Amino acid sequence: MYYHDRRLQYPVTVEKPDPAFARMLQQAIGGVEGEIRVCMQYFFQAWGNRAPTPKYRDMLLHTATEEIGHIEMLATAVALNLDKAPASLQEEGAADGIVGAVMGGGNGRQEIEGLIHKNLLSGGLAAMPMDSDGVPFNMSHVYASGNVAADMYCNVAAESTGRVLAVRLFNAAHDEGMKKMLHYMIARDTMHQQQWLAVIEELGGAAANLPIPNSFPQEQEDQENNYNFYATAADGSYPEGRWTSGPSIDGRGEFTVFPNKPLGEEPILGPARPDSGAQDKQIG
Amino acid sequence: MYYHDRRLQYPVTVEKPDPAFARMLQQAIGGVEGEIRVCMQYFFQAWGNRAPTPKYRDMLLHTATEEIGHIEMLATAVALNLDKAPASLQEEGAADGIVGAVMGGGNGRQEIEGLIHKNLLSGGLAAMPMDSDGVPFNMSHVYASGNVAADMYCNVAAESTGRVLAVRLFNAAHDEGMKKMLHYMIARDTMHQQQWLAVIEELGGAAANLPIPNSFPQEQEDQENNYNFYATAADGSYPEGRWTSGPSIDGRGEFTVFPNKPLGEEPILGPARPDSGAQDKQIG
Amino acid sequence: MYYHDRRLQYPVTVEKPDPAFARMLQQAIGGVEGEIRVCMQYFFQAWGNRAPTPKYRDMLLHTATEEIGHIEMLATAVALNLDKAPASLQEEGAADGIVGAVMGGGNGRQEIEGLIHKNLLSGGLAAMPMDSDGVPFNMSHVYASGNVAADMYCNVAAESTGRVLAVRLFNAAHDEGMKKMLHYMIARDTMHQQQWLAVIEELGGAAANLPIPNSFPQEQEDQENNYNFYATAADGSYPEGRWTSGPSIDGRGEFTVFPNKPLGEEPILGPARPDSGAQDKQIG
Amino acid sequence: MYYHDRRLQYPVTVEKPDPAFARMLQQAIGGVEGEIRVCMQYFFQAWGNRAPTPKYRDMLLHTATEEIGHIEMLATAVALNLDKAPASLQEEGAADGIVGAVMGGGNGRQEIEGLIHKNLLSGGLAAMPMDSDGVPFNMSHVYASGNVAADMYCNVAAESTGRVLAVRLFNAAHDEGMKKMLHYMIARDTMHQQQWLAVIEELGGAAANLPIPNSFPQEQEDQENNYNFYATAADGSYPEGRWTSGPSIDGRGEFTVFPNKPLGEEPILGPARPDSGAQDKQIG
Amino acid sequence: MYYHDRRLQYPVTVEKPDPAFARMLQQAIGGVEGEIRVCMQYFFQAWGNRAPTPKYRDMLLHTATEEIGHIEMLATAVALNLDKAPASLQEEGAADGIVGAVMGGGNGRQEIEGLIHKNLLSGGLAAMPMDSDGVPFNMSHVYASGNVAADMYCNVAAESTGRVLAVRLFNAAHDEGMKKMLHYMIARDTMHQQQWLAVIEELGGAAANLPIPNSFPQEQEDQENNYNFYATAADGSYPEGRWTSGPSIDGRGEFTVFPNKPLGEEPILGPARPDSGAQDKQIG
Amino acid sequence: MYYHDRRLQYPVTVEKPDPAFARMLQQAIGGVEGEIRVCMQYFFQAWGNRAPTPKYRDMLLHTATEEIGHIEMLATAVALNLDKAPASLQEEGAADGIVGAVMGGGNGRQEIEGLIHKNLLSGGLAAMPMDSDGVPFNMSHVYASGNVAADMYCNVAAESTGRVLAVRLFNAAHDEGMKKMLHYMIARDTMHQQQWLAVIEELGGAAANLPIPNSFPQEQEDQENNYNFYATAADGSYPEGRWTSGPSIDGRGEFTVFPNKPLGEEPILGPARPDSGAQDKQIG
Repeated sequence: MYYHDRRLQYPVTVEKPDPAFARMLQQAIGGVEGEIRVCMQYFFQAWGNRAPTPKYRDMLLHTATEEIGHIEMLATAVALNLDKAPASLQEEGAADGIVGAVMGGGNGRQEIEGLIHKNLLSGGLAAMPMDSDGVPFNMSHVYASGNVAADMYCNVAAESTGRVLAVRLFNAAHDEGMKKMLHYMIARDTMHQQQWLAVIEELGGAAANLPIPNSFPQEQEDQENNYNFYATAADGSYPEGRWTSGPSIDGRGEFTVFPNKPLGEEPILGPARPDSGAQDKQIG
Repeated sequence: MYYHDRRLQYPVTVEKPDPAFARMLQQAIGGVEGEIRVCMQYFFQAWGNRAPTPKYRDMLLHTATEEIGHIEMLATAVALNLDKAPASLQEEGAADGIVGAVMGGGNGRQEIEGLIHKNLLSGGLAAMPMDSDGVPFNMSHVYASGNVAADMYCNVAAESTGRVLAVRLFNAAHDEGMKKMLHYMIARDTMHQQQWLAVIEELGGAAANLPIPNSFPQEQEDQENNYNFYATAADGSYPEGRWTSGPSIDGRGEFTVFPNKPLGEEPILGPARPDSGAQDKQIG
Repeated sequence: MYYHDRRLQYPVTVEKPDPAFARMLQQAIGGVEGEIRVCMQYFFQAWGNRAPTPKYRDMLLHTATEEIGHIEMLATAVALNLDKAPASLQEEGAADGIVGAVMGGGNGRQEIEGLIHKNLLSGGLAAMPMDSDGVPFNMSHVYASGNVAADMYCNVAAESTGRVLAVRLFNAAHDEGMKKMLHYMIARDTMHQQQWLAVIEELGGAAANLPIPNSFPQEQEDQENNYNFYATAADGSYPEGRWTSGPSIDGRGEFTVFPNKPLGEEPILGPARPDSGAQDKQIG
Repeated sequence: MYYHDRRLQYPVTVEKPDPAFARMLQQAIGGVEGEIRVCMQYFFQAWGNRAPTPKYRDMLLHTATEEIGHIEMLATAVALNLDKAPASLQEEGAADGIVGAVMGGGNGRQEIEGLIHKNLLSGGLAAMPMDSDGVPFNMSHVYASGNVAADMYCNVAAESTGRVLAVRLFNAAHDEGMKKMLHYMIARDTMHQQQWLAVIEELGGAAANLPIPNSFPQEQEDQENNYNFYATAADGSYPEGRWTSGPSIDGRGEFTVFPNKPLGEEPILGPARPDSGAQDKQIG
Repeated sequence: MYYHDRRLQYPVTVEKPDPAFARMLQQAIGGVEGEIRVCMQYFFQAWGNRAPTPKYRDMLLHTATEEIGHIEMLATAVALNLDKAPASLQEEGAADGIVGAVMGGGNGRQEIEGLIHKNLLSGGLAAMPMDSDGVPFNMSHVYASGNVAADMYCNVAAESTGRVLAVRLFNAAHDEGMKKMLHYMIARDTMHQQQWLAVIEELGGAAANLPIPNSFPQEQEDQENNYNFYATAADGSYPEGRWTSGPSIDGRGEFTVFPNKPLGEEPILGPARPDSGAQDKQIG
Repeated sequence: MYYHDRRLQYPVTVEKPDPAFARMLQQAIGGVEGEIRVCMQYFFQAWGNRAPTPKYRDMLLHTATEEIGHIEMLATAVALNLDKAPASLQEEGAADGIVGAVMGGGNGRQEIEGLIHKNLLSGGLAAMPMDSDGVPFNMSHVYASGNVAADMYCNVAAESTGRVLAVRLFNAAHDEGMKKMLHYMIARDTMHQQQWLAVIEELGGAAANLPIPNSFPQEQEDQENNYNFYATAADGSYPEGRWTSGPSIDGRGEFTVFPNKPLGEEPILGPARPDSGAQDKQIG
């Protein structure tokens, strides 16, 4: 179970509110690489964790709980960026209803409104659990497979795309308060990338854990097709690299190249049945 | 651009059709860890690849193209599992319309129908681009971030959850043809896990690539919060591990523990504006 | 079954078409607080209504049918706002294809286009069943629970957020015709808020109907935890209010405060099974 | 920001695991009336709360934080129901892979598998953020309008449908541990229904708050259409009730009946433009 | 605007309620080939219709209005199929809560419950706007392009898949009342297929309307690639048919075969920019 | 199985990159009338094709494979339009981070950013599988019914709306390279419209194939309601046309008009059961 503190994890201030930047921040809240995703992903991985030891369940709870505070910071940042319009706009928009008051009635009115449609009309100038295009977050992005190594790579992937996003937002930010908040979030993403890789290292590293799942006897997989790069170019060419020759990453095989060709035959499905809603010519 | 061969990548045969297993296979077609996902993910990573060299773009195209053939194999497998009903059922169902003919009219009729509702009613006894619960695949699961290392970890994650799924399907399969097809797919997933990790190794390994993105000057991130594990348990306890002490995975820091506490203040948003559709008591 | 009249429920006129306002109106068509939602919600509540009397089924049909006309008015308003461009823009855009013709080719061309992307490209300058960010309406927002009191509160919620939206659109509108249409819709929302609360009053009011469902014997619920406010602040503080002391709203209890603490234990799940696709270290 | 305790809010035990009941519980996790919804709804209402006082922001944080613990309890309950199969099944399934081990290889094998497809194949026998049909939760169901009274009615609606669901699950439960957990959750839903209604009472009750938003001057709405029931039956009949005569609920009007008829005219849209991708006969 | 009649379009009776069949009927309500789709599609085509004449707008309104009654019939049929359980089950389920009461507590209990999860838990034994797998209808399936001929083909497609579905349901039905309702719906789908093709005939038939849109000057399209079948088989083979030789359907060209090969070059995107969140090796 | 060629199907060049046009092109990638849809639709129709002959399966594979190359062309076009900003903007944006570098820091900065939010933040200035409003493609739009004639009409519908979209994009394009690419795609859509109609002609034309499915004995449908236009206008009027009199399109009936009226009775559902979570007054 959980407790809260009304104070924020880290200071969030906005000197010059910027509605367009508010919309960009939405990507870090409800985008597929955003904070709702990692928060819920770590929680569901923790709650469903099956292992002889509660250690990883515990660790996941710590970081999942930390992430709630990140959503909170970003939601606060969105609201503050929608809070007041630049002084120069505020005046002329005064007679103009909420939209005008916030955005100013000038030439750019319609365009800026367009950037924050749903935050204004549906959310009342606040953050919403959606991305920068207004698409609501879909919980199918919560990856929790029941395999701890697979989950850790899912988490590295999430924190990698998450830090890429945070860096893009940092580069796009003009407000010092926003840059400070983001320089903190970028740092936390650095740690979280490390943290999930540390679990894999603690579990024996890539060699011990690959292929995932490592509990499936590898002799039951097709041993002629598990370390060869399939070259599908019609002219037979392929890009040489670490993956075309030499020992495999897990040290259990040798990379080779397979010029792709069909190993199977043309499939033949049974004709349609008389009562299956097909056309008469489909019925055998 | 692309070419096709009518023959399958690998043999797909079904001796004893099993409608319930057909539905399970749908997860490997349209589930979030399925083949449509990796196929489209590799294509979009390739088509949007920005780099001084076309090498990784090329490699991605090879594997994306291979994956189309995997969707094809699974779609064929679903159709074959829905193709004919067990002989013992076929007879009594003959007078019974398509559902009966396929499933038999016996006691289990309704239950089995329930397992394949949409494959029957909407797809006409064929595969559909949806998961094992009938949820259509949503393309937001195609992760292509424009950062090659982030993308590689997304791919490792996809192939890890993908191989976990394939192993579960293998363990659930009873038909020899299905087991053979899956033992091939499991092998290809092994290779693909290797392949994406090989790219990271070729790019210098974790040390050279972390934190992702590595083009962001790390001195601009919050250096006091980038290698410390945040402990959020209310009683101050935390699980010790590779992530609480010692050198960080990227060798650029030292892991420490931070007993979490608020570094910010309680946020204060401006009151609602008079014309914003709020209640009167919200207006400042 | 249903009949139609080609005339609109209420006049819809647009003197100065405004493509950006057209997009805002989309929220009232396909937003979660929009008219498709209430229309379909009332229909499904009516069609599934179970009661000894057809009275509420009837009433719901009246208002559901009224709401079709509201979607129609809004769809007409969107089309009219996309119908002709302001005269000053029309001229320079003449040589410029449909987008140019409608929007003008000037500096703001691209921005305004962006506001109506799908209405133009997919809908041909007409309304679509989506919200102001172009997200299609998802029918899971049709709440029809089979419990008449729960449904009435769902309806009050829908009409409350609906009227909030209509007021925001009214405040953003510049065209007299649009203001007139919206002043009518706001009035209908007023009535519908009343109407659903009137049902609750007719059924005996909050006291008789709470807790919902009132057919569950309240002595079967945990009587020690049904009227106490859970305070989760880590420092034990909580906001005092109507909900922390005094008689409960339904008159069946007394509000108290519970300083939250765990009443359960740490959960222990069984370890992963050997054949479940987990990593070997997860297997007990 | 947030803290956690590894212990559960309330005891969760399962004596006889029941995979089918696990799937039913998913509705309370990721259904539209489930706990993820209320948790996130209260958080976003808190984080975006605009008011001269932080009081309601505070209160919302308390209850949002409580709700995380409810998701956790339900996720634990799902995992425990998938944890071990009944002894009688376990034996015969032993040789049969994970599915068999859990479900038994008997006649009902396929049917029960079908009930938990994604929990098994994608989640590894754990809870997932989806409903009882496997549909992932969509965050557009988080209603946070920026209007405190509208939000409170949204919350009453959520807790009403939520308690209806919990009662249905209670009635369907066979396991004493599950019944106990649910009798607690039903009690918390009782309190939460009370709590949001208490806010409305504290704000002055329905009379003071209706119509929502109460900050819009009611004389600007169409005063001839704000308290009349629209009768749309083709034969002119209508169901008499509290909503057809007498004072309105807010005491500001008198209910009447309006035999519906069009107040507007047939709409006429401009013909299609020559360059708009229409057919030639559509172009005026 | 619209009127209603409390009576159904056509009789809907159920002698032997069948919960599993109720779920199958859901496909005809909220499936992509179901009645909500055609109803809303015809309404949005009507409301956005641009033409010099209101004729087609009118016609679409007639049929859209008819379709509301079809959803109503199907929703009624779902509810009646969930209304009462077979007598033999009712008894033993009496002590067993709602699920038991409806389904009986026997061996098949769990399986049948699984088939109607959300109709029971979320809908209270009523129809919901979702398909036979419980996936809510998504309004993006409402095709209304602004081009009357394209729309008519969308409508033919909808009524064709719709009648295929109705036939499958008819073949699966065991209850005489259900068969009668469906034999009526199948007939209406026959008419609607005719009706939309009649519009195309009235507009001049395929020859006059193709290619759609016919208002685009065909000399502006690539005249070397508009009537040739692209053969993509790697071995150069292709299936001969009406589409490989002879006059084109619109009489404006001659079908030929093009052995596919690239007409373009390998694309070269610019390298990643230094500040774009890419890896350092991607930056040119 | 499949092969690729690194070269494009047709040249894709962009002289003056236009981020706003890039977003419009997204509709042709991930819109419901876009190329992912037709590609996947033809593949799933092919893979599930049931017929005594492989002919149509083959043909579908040819065109599905062609369509992969179309997605590739469009994805390339999006990336090239995001590749470099106009020279005049590039300079002033240089100090401004990625967004500035691409878009320029001038007055229009925020607005243009808004148009490409997710392409920038999530995709790193590349194409994504979503539409022009940033809504990800949902695979439920892949229509593959198992009935070949229904599928062909679905394909004609897809290529008709697809060509309408391509024409709109052509009319909106300013860059010669883009116009050239689109004039090619428009031509391919012309062929594909022809191609699917050619299949219907080869199968005997509309007369032989209607009503779809033609394998259902038409004497089992309601012969009194299969060729009459239902007039639902409350005043009894209706639009005369090809569909109100004369022989039906399939030549099997005569069109007539039915002034709509209820043929059924008011439905009566059983009251709610005592243990179904209803309110007490709903229980019979």
